[in-house]
Amino acid sequence: MNVQGEISAQAAAPVETPLEAKTRGTIWGVGLGPGDPELMSVRADRLLRNARHVAYFRKAGRPGQARRIVEGMLRADVIEIAMEYPVTTEIPLTDPRYNALLSAFYEDCTAKLRALSDAGHEVLVLAEGDPFFYGSFMHLFTRLKGHAPLQVVPAIPGMAAAWCATGLPITWGDDVMSTLMGTLPEDELVRQMRNADALVIMKIGRNIDKVRRALRAAGRFEDAWLVEHAAMPGQSVQRLSEAEGRVTPYFSIVLVHGQGRRP
Amino acid sequence: MNVQGEISAQAAAPVETPLEAKTRGTIWGVGLGPGDPELMSVRADRLLRNARHVAYFRKAGRPGQARRIVEGMLRADVIEIAMEYPVTTEIPLTDPRYNALLSAFYEDCTAKLRALSDAGHEVLVLAEGDPFFYGSFMHLFTRLKGHAPLQVVPAIPGMAAAWCATGLPITWGDDVMSTLMGTLPEDELVRQMRNADALVIMKIGRNIDKVRRALRAAGRFEDAWLVEHAAMPGQSVQRLSEAEGRVTPYFSIVLVHGQGRRP
Repeated sequence: MNVQGEISAQAAAPVETPLEAKTRGTIWGVGLGPGDPELMSVRADRLLRNARHVAYFRKAGRPGQARRIVEGMLRADVIEIAMEYPVTTEIPLTDPRYNALLSAFYEDCTAKLRALSDAGHEVLVLAEGDPFFYGSFMHLFTRLKGHAPLQVVPAIPGMAAAWCATGLPITWGDDVMSTLMGTLPEDELVRQMRNADALVIMKIGRNIDKVRRALRAAGRFEDAWLVEHAAMPGQSVQRLSEAEGRVTPYFSIVLVHGQGRRP
Repeated sequence: MNVQGEISAQAAAPVETPLEAKTRGTIWGVGLGPGDPELMSVRADRLLRNARHVAYFRKAGRPGQARRIVEGMLRADVIEIAMEYPVTTEIPLTDPRYNALLSAFYEDCTAKLRALSDAGHEVLVLAEGDPFFYGSFMHLFTRLKGHAPLQVVPAIPGMAAAWCATGLPITWGDDVMSTLMGTLPEDELVRQMRNADALVIMKIGRNIDKVRRALRAAGRFEDAWLVEHAAMPGQSVQRLSEAEGRVTPYFSIVLVHGQGRRP
């Protein structure tokens, strides 16, 4: 960058903050953790309370879970950027339109965030759970990489709040733990459930019956727990066998605890 | 409990805090996260700054990693309970003396914590990473259950700081992630490494050569990263293939990122 140019820019616009006028703002992927504001990191808490620009995903017409978690924490003069999904569960994942719609949506979000960064603004993108663990922020991150300064704040993944809620440790000694998505084919779920000591199964919702069948086939059903709304209002913890017929939210987590070596 | 007895106890000792004399203190397993104090939860931070009794594990003659993380945060009048391991890596895990020694040690720690709880004191037990994810606190927790009020504060596991440090998301779409201990037999490591999309391998240290061989056999070596001291001073991130011959600390983490579905 030309130093003389910088000086001219400052002289031409003396009321602008010179640093903001010259430097691209950092885009932060801020993990919010499982949902309880007290389970955010000290860093996330500090960043949020000072933020001028906060962006988050939500389903159209809904307040959004990420936004709900930070309620009461933001500055009065914060500028909010609500990024509304064009589609969530209306079109199946396997439909090519799903990918096309979402890809266009992420491109659009990326353009908005880049424009803010280019204008020198820092932007916090809220991410439920940990930003790099099955998170939506990743779709922005990969598109923004190389175009804006990026920072990621790790967070407590929802599964840690879930196993904490059961009051039982999830892994001991040499236990192998596998995280499985309920969206996997049933036979693959069975194979994976047989293969690990501790299991974390996410993206439950309409996959719950498939997950139940797979756990039975793998001989793990009796040891499975269902945790709904972990570390959130309305938290519920029960053995999966006692939740028969129950309709479960998409963000429920099914757990099977490891039983490994312990002195 | 006899109500009359309680009243008498209060009358006999009026200078004692009546609540402390009657109620057992809660023993907290407080997850500290990966090591950076800013990555503690707001709850852990608040509890630590107010704590009167803080217990932690350490190797004899060492300050202890958990204690180091909270340096500068504790009250001036805090009472510290250092629980010193009778053995760490001097005896192999497979030696029956290892289990006997550690079991006696945990019983001894449990007795000390119960005595404090019975006397009405709250005690915070520091836990690196998340307390229920391969943590030492679990060995106290299972022994204290039913004998003292217990609370657990989940935390960011070390692996989340590790994948954050690589600047690459760990899991996408339907990726299966497995966490594997470097202490597993080599053939089991190979089998598990072939079976998952994303891998997190912990307890590296002297197992590094076995982990390397297993990754090569499973065809995952070229995609593996080595993260040392994640979210701590001296953090180092490199491709495992570029760390040949390197001696790695026990708390290093090896990662292979998932490459699943993304719009």
